[in-house]
Amino acid sequence: MLGNFKYSNPTKLYFGDNAISFLSDELKNYGNKIMLSYGGGSIKKNGIYDEVISILKADGKIIFEDPGVMANPTVEKLYEGCKIAKDNDVDLILAVGGGSTIDYAKAVSVSAWCIEDPWKKYYLEEKEPDNKIIPVGSILTMVGTGSEMNGGSVITNNKEKLKIGRVFGDNVMPKFSILNPKYTFTVPKYQMVSGIYDAFNHICEQYFSGNDDNTSDYISEALMKSLIESSKIAVKDPQNYQARSNIMWSATWALNTLIAMGKTTDWEVHMLGHAISAYTNATHGMTLSSVSLPYYKHIMPYAIEKFKKFAKNVWDVDVKNMSGKDAAIEGLKRMENWMKEIGVVLNSKELGVTEDMLEGIANATFILQGGYKVLTHDDVINILKESMKN
Amino acid sequence: MLGNFKYSNPTKLYFGDNAISFLSDELKNYGNKIMLSYGGGSIKKNGIYDEVISILKADGKIIFEDPGVMANPTVEKLYEGCKIAKDNDVDLILAVGGGSTIDYAKAVSVSAWCIEDPWKKYYLEEKEPDNKIIPVGSILTMVGTGSEMNGGSVITNNKEKLKIGRVFGDNVMPKFSILNPKYTFTVPKYQMVSGIYDAFNHICEQYFSGNDDNTSDYISEALMKSLIESSKIAVKDPQNYQARSNIMWSATWALNTLIAMGKTTDWEVHMLGHAISAYTNATHGMTLSSVSLPYYKHIMPYAIEKFKKFAKNVWDVDVKNMSGKDAAIEGLKRMENWMKEIGVVLNSKELGVTEDMLEGIANATFILQGGYKVLTHDDVINILKESMKN
Repeated sequence: MLGNFKYSNPTKLYFGDNAISFLSDELKNYGNKIMLSYGGGSIKKNGIYDEVISILKADGKIIFEDPGVMANPTVEKLYEGCKIAKDNDVDLILAVGGGSTIDYAKAVSVSAWCIEDPWKKYYLEEKEPDNKIIPVGSILTMVGTGSEMNGGSVITNNKEKLKIGRVFGDNVMPKFSILNPKYTFTVPKYQMVSGIYDAFNHICEQYFSGNDDNTSDYISEALMKSLIESSKIAVKDPQNYQARSNIMWSATWALNTLIAMGKTTDWEVHMLGHAISAYTNATHGMTLSSVSLPYYKHIMPYAIEKFKKFAKNVWDVDVKNMSGKDAAIEGLKRMENWMKEIGVVLNSKELGVTEDMLEGIANATFILQGGYKVLTHDDVINILKESMKN
Repeated sequence: MLGNFKYSNPTKLYFGDNAISFLSDELKNYGNKIMLSYGGGSIKKNGIYDEVISILKADGKIIFEDPGVMANPTVEKLYEGCKIAKDNDVDLILAVGGGSTIDYAKAVSVSAWCIEDPWKKYYLEEKEPDNKIIPVGSILTMVGTGSEMNGGSVITNNKEKLKIGRVFGDNVMPKFSILNPKYTFTVPKYQMVSGIYDAFNHICEQYFSGNDDNTSDYISEALMKSLIESSKIAVKDPQNYQARSNIMWSATWALNTLIAMGKTTDWEVHMLGHAISAYTNATHGMTLSSVSLPYYKHIMPYAIEKFKKFAKNVWDVDVKNMSGKDAAIEGLKRMENWMKEIGVVLNSKELGVTEDMLEGIANATFILQGGYKVLTHDDVINILKESMKN
């Protein structure tokens, strides 16, 4: 732990198959006007919507419905949500869904009472909120982004072909999140493994970045091992409560700031993934999986010893008599095998990426500092080309 | 993650060699009357006292001095602190010290405005606070207990020969804690390794208990590996910032409730250690180290596979061709070697334990449920006898 840092995470978590029973107690902390944000309606099919509505009604809450949050929440949807929140002066935004819905709820929470254009203020210029912030609570139904316990919020501007994620402070984090692994049982397999890979990549981004750090690195390896072990079970048996619960818990801790403390990070795989998503509207986790191996092969020469450590500690490679490079390659090979086993996308063409998009995607890729290698435009083009070959 | 649980940890942490610079900002959240609790005066020798006082004075705070918090804070000292806090209606208790001082500050925080006898209400009967709670902030100068980020508070009643620890809820946890690894540089080696072992044992208590759980077990192993690696460096080079900072950070996460989520725990080594301490006033971490190996050897037959996992994942034992029992024994052997290398006490006689105390210590040992084996009185006597042989 070499840097100076502040750690603060006030989100209360209720975890387990009975977690929803705490909702009513939490609601007592807020006023009566609840904005209920959710996605395309899957929560109506699996019964979660009815369960939540009955609790809100029993508690005498006034519900303002805000359905239709899309997988990559748009700036237009944000403006629509702000109108609902402001016109009704809501006391709490209750987000029921996956990371997209919770990211969106946070965006509305800081934007509803913002007098400037929130897209410009909060996403393009990354300013800190100085207006009223509406509290957010979440009920998680899809695992991956960690949005349930962080200040992250990703919004897409399709006109500008920009998908921008930012991380707000602890005043924007959800006040509480309800994590019931059973709520994730009905998520389609494609979405499930996309979420698992998203969480895994969150750890990779923080692990393969900045200074080595024994505590954070060991915890990162722990979370990766947990995800690998449980994902193998979950793809065969999606109703396995223990596997789904370990995935849920690991994903939360993969991106609630803990493992990044004291480190620098560039989040370059996410930057590549966001650019791909802005061009293809592909599922977030799959955009990451499609560029990960080309990216990590590309930066491996700048951190051979770290990739060797990854091979030994995460993938159980017996590195004793191996060169750093051979060990590093073997580690990535085992990672590739695991990615194939759980079924994530390894070729960006499957997501709709075409040759003629490459320049545009490369231009839309934010190049950040803090990782092992600051990418050039040519690096990005090469990584994207490699991502079309697998 | 099999159980249902709530996770909530609102303590803000400021970490690093510049962490004290955030104190002034934090103080703005509280009124002007600050009770300054600390120990025997080491903070006056190493300059921390002067540094804190100058910040408090510059911020116009009124300081109520509360020195003399002992290593095992007594119920008499608690009553004394309550009087200072209540008579002056203090707005914040600022604890500068190790776990004893912070534990004590939490005790005062719930007890000052308690109309009943706080020893009886909070420690003997383990009731929840229903009176005004004075907020606590901490500046950590000794690593080990994790008190800087939890609700734990241990108080000793010498007359009753009882040392009782309890865990309050998140409303009693420190509001903020300042963690500067350099503040721990001047801690004597005996105290340093005692704190390291205390933290290590916190992880063991949670790891060797309840159901196996892949996420929590992997994180526990990560924290143990971090402590083992850094402690070996720190005993040779106490001024090694990176080692001391990793120890500090690992110790905080070893006991801030994270790795216990969803598990049952009995904390039996602590129960034994507390009883020894009530009879000898020995340093907390050393009471734990003196009984750990006899205790773990005693419960090993009830969890051979877990001890094998411990051997492989924490101590890098090549368990492939070993029986569970052999692997388990080898893991504990390596743990013993490490304990010898860093220099913790392995024989309770060194702490002042004598044969004639054994019945009394055994009777003062709380026997709790939740571990691999509920101890009988004879088990305790046998473990204590073994602890005198090493």
